[in-house]
Amino acid sequence: MLKVSLAQINPTVGDLAGNTRKILDYTAQAQKAGAALVVFPELAICGYPPEDLVLKRHFVANNIKSLDALAKKARGISVIVGFVDSDSKGNIYNAAALLSQGKVQAVYHKQQLPNYGVFDEKRYFSVGETLGLVTIEGIKVGINVCEDIWIDGAIYQDQVKAGAKLLINISSSPYHSGKLKEREALLKERAKKIKVPIVYVNAVGGQDELVFDGGSMVMAADGNLMARAVQFEETLLTVDLKAKEHPIAPALDSAEEIYKALVLGTRDYAGKSGFKKVALGLSGGVDSALVAAIAVDAFGKDNVVGISMPTRFNSKETRRDAQGLAKNLGIEFKEIPIGKIFDMYLKTMAPFFAGTAANTAEENIQARIRGNILMAMANKFGWLILTTGNKSEMAVGYCTLYGDMSGGYAVIKDVFKTKVYELCRYRNHISRDAVIPKSILLRAPSAELRLNQTDEESLGAYEDLDKILKAYIEGHASPQDIVALGMNAKMVERTVRLVDTNEYKRRQAPPGVKITARSFGKDWRLPITNRYKE
Amino acid sequence: MLKVSLAQINPTVGDLAGNTRKILDYTAQAQKAGAALVVFPELAICGYPPEDLVLKRHFVANNIKSLDALAKKARGISVIVGFVDSDSKGNIYNAAALLSQGKVQAVYHKQQLPNYGVFDEKRYFSVGETLGLVTIEGIKVGINVCEDIWIDGAIYQDQVKAGAKLLINISSSPYHSGKLKEREALLKERAKKIKVPIVYVNAVGGQDELVFDGGSMVMAADGNLMARAVQFEETLLTVDLKAKEHPIAPALDSAEEIYKALVLGTRDYAGKSGFKKVALGLSGGVDSALVAAIAVDAFGKDNVVGISMPTRFNSKETRRDAQGLAKNLGIEFKEIPIGKIFDMYLKTMAPFFAGTAANTAEENIQARIRGNILMAMANKFGWLILTTGNKSEMAVGYCTLYGDMSGGYAVIKDVFKTKVYELCRYRNHISRDAVIPKSILLRAPSAELRLNQTDEESLGAYEDLDKILKAYIEGHASPQDIVALGMNAKMVERTVRLVDTNEYKRRQAPPGVKITARSFGKDWRLPITNRYKE
Repeated sequence: MLKVSLAQINPTVGDLAGNTRKILDYTAQAQKAGAALVVFPELAICGYPPEDLVLKRHFVANNIKSLDALAKKARGISVIVGFVDSDSKGNIYNAAALLSQGKVQAVYHKQQLPNYGVFDEKRYFSVGETLGLVTIEGIKVGINVCEDIWIDGAIYQDQVKAGAKLLINISSSPYHSGKLKEREALLKERAKKIKVPIVYVNAVGGQDELVFDGGSMVMAADGNLMARAVQFEETLLTVDLKAKEHPIAPALDSAEEIYKALVLGTRDYAGKSGFKKVALGLSGGVDSALVAAIAVDAFGKDNVVGISMPTRFNSKETRRDAQGLAKNLGIEFKEIPIGKIFDMYLKTMAPFFAGTAANTAEENIQARIRGNILMAMANKFGWLILTTGNKSEMAVGYCTLYGDMSGGYAVIKDVFKTKVYELCRYRNHISRDAVIPKSILLRAPSAELRLNQTDEESLGAYEDLDKILKAYIEGHASPQDIVALGMNAKMVERTVRLVDTNEYKRRQAPPGVKITARSFGKDWRLPITNRYKE
Repeated sequence: MLKVSLAQINPTVGDLAGNTRKILDYTAQAQKAGAALVVFPELAICGYPPEDLVLKRHFVANNIKSLDALAKKARGISVIVGFVDSDSKGNIYNAAALLSQGKVQAVYHKQQLPNYGVFDEKRYFSVGETLGLVTIEGIKVGINVCEDIWIDGAIYQDQVKAGAKLLINISSSPYHSGKLKEREALLKERAKKIKVPIVYVNAVGGQDELVFDGGSMVMAADGNLMARAVQFEETLLTVDLKAKEHPIAPALDSAEEIYKALVLGTRDYAGKSGFKKVALGLSGGVDSALVAAIAVDAFGKDNVVGISMPTRFNSKETRRDAQGLAKNLGIEFKEIPIGKIFDMYLKTMAPFFAGTAANTAEENIQARIRGNILMAMANKFGWLILTTGNKSEMAVGYCTLYGDMSGGYAVIKDVFKTKVYELCRYRNHISRDAVIPKSILLRAPSAELRLNQTDEESLGAYEDLDKILKAYIEGHASPQDIVALGMNAKMVERTVRLVDTNEYKRRQAPPGVKITARSFGKDWRLPITNRYKE
């Protein structure tokens, strides 16, 4: 049997030259490791998902030129790599090529095109019709791409019937919590049924809202996991299919897995766009504490700036905690009080607000001053601003558009508030000293935009809120369904109404890491204008 | 032959009860007009496009309940209406039902599911397999849905082969400039080939970024236009297919058509979400002048507030023009100088900005103060804020995120700057007196965020810029292709780079009316993280 290298690389969308260099580099490493075959992820040459870039004919042509250049250098080893293929009619395909002896030896076109959740593959690609069966070092190998292995009875079955003794699946499979286990269970079932081993190579890295978590693996023909690569890191895993022992990277527990996804997604969003330094508003609350910790783990403490922007509504305790957090993390800390600017707004608006009661207008002015100051610092110094809103807030609109929603990347926008606490505890647990001050974790959450405000007074208990939101967002449940789960009917009704009426805010939010089965990203396409009420 | 009513209605997405009432109302009107058949648009019961609402099982179930309620009341007339059907396996279909004698007599499932441009129908719907041939008043009729008539040799041909003497196509066909002519040319060609008349019923109204322009029509079997409904208005057009003369609403010229699309899209975005009053910043420039005029035509002058927010960088002339425009339009006008707030920001930031040169940071602070003030007024009084940026600016990022991009609806975000001038001239032309002061149309455009700034100094001549942008955005052209059109290579390179690097701004922009073949909406899905350079 073959010695195969699983090249779990981190491509950048559109960076044809950079991705090609990386593929050459990993091919050389695989050769050094004695592999007969090296396998790269789905669309490794152009990055995944290229989205509407593939509507540019020159983009597709250039990615094929990159493939041809790779083929010429493939000598002494076979290479399987993903790219966008095109035919004479102008149809394009999500494709895998086998390169060896300086040539493109075979091309397979993906047949199962996912067009749900975050996926739009039917927007771009035609359905393939070739079998994808090749011979490598005398062994018949079936090559297929991502979704092809997920759909019961798809091409992988035909490949085995036609004599394949090994299946290779190249994927760019986006992360959500628990996805690795889903993949492993699937491959186990497939292998047992078809009785051939499966080499599964996944991409790693962040691309806008998506994180590819790697975790590439080899499933033996008997359904036992033979080898597994680490998650969230670029790596080359070389597996001698004849050998008895192989490296199996340990599975991560849930909090660690999510935390690492957040770090990688944030690091790559900034890094791939050329940002070296980030800043965020530190309120002394739990959300900004978590984001600050993630930022430090993503960029290093010298590249993170924490900015506190207090008013008279901010307690001494939260101001002290903001500073304490920055000190614990070792990041630069600035305090920019906004009271005088706020007063000047109120004075300016007084003639226009005369005779009205204070409402969210005054509260939001403060949040928007903070947004303006963070963006001014970003514009002045070239930093990326990280926003700190969580999924519970994004869901019900408990956030200020152009205020605390101002920034380039919304690190925890897919993390429910209850999960924010869990991740803070995880982060404190892995440090020798608690980096997030205990007082932050113990204090009742508040937006501090007026006196004595608390979140739960406005929204209900987060424990309940998050249960309702999860059922509504991920479960597509109706209000009645949710009440039937034992939730308070009034709270359900209010929450669902808030989710529906705040779509306009989410539409203008920055992207952030997807960690659940349904994030407020490409997998959430609700109309803003929407009068549906059950 | 039949007497048919084309019910060109304006449904609201999700408003099952309201849409059902409207369908009943138009059915009664059609009966009064002596029609044997009344035809409603695609997905009229739930509105189009319902997007992820159809992933809620209860939504689909409730829309079927609405259909059943309609069926019970369909007596003495036949009704064809669009809805979402479901089968026992949980598949859903974009469907048309024939209702008569108190029952659902037949259901057709759309076969051609568009999944390009703004369309995501393969995300939701399964492909239909029924023929859609029914008999109404003794005449064999083929029923099909929107895309079914656009694809050569699709189901309409089978229907005619099976004996259909009349085709009915129900559509919700989104507007872009010139679309009516495209539809008419298509139907003409189809009718001539298959030699049966085609009744084409389109929806009308705005839904987020889309406008449905109506223009429903009947094409005779010989390819002559028999009847046509007005564009951009709800209407019932009753056509006796035996008669010799029929009403044909006149075609609009290009500027009028686009202007009406902008008015309708803006009116429905606000109205369907419950806003009665709108406000916008008046800079004294051409963009805000056009948006103000559109707002007045959409909501009436008493429901539009113009707010000027000058600094020392705003000339006397532009301040005077802002006021003159408001006076001409008869709208409420407020001037809120922002100099003192700006100074307070500069004072607050001074310790942090010390030693740096003035750059976009100081410019953007001003734009964001304006955004904050507009939003404060919106939050205080419940107004919708209209933004005033045009497509040329949105393309190259010549706009401030959370500044002039702050607001609920971006009326002219799909209108190039050169087209903005054309629409202003059109608007002045249709009034007795020029509502947009000539000086606004003559002055060189400037953001007025520093002294003696002009747009064209930064961006190049708008005539050239818009040509480059159109080729790049709508034509998917490469920089080389554009230079080959005769454009300056350096300007092309700079412009293309600006478009690519400003994706992050567009992603956080409010929606606005689509009027071109490719807007910065659902038909523009580019990655933010993108290192592609040709």
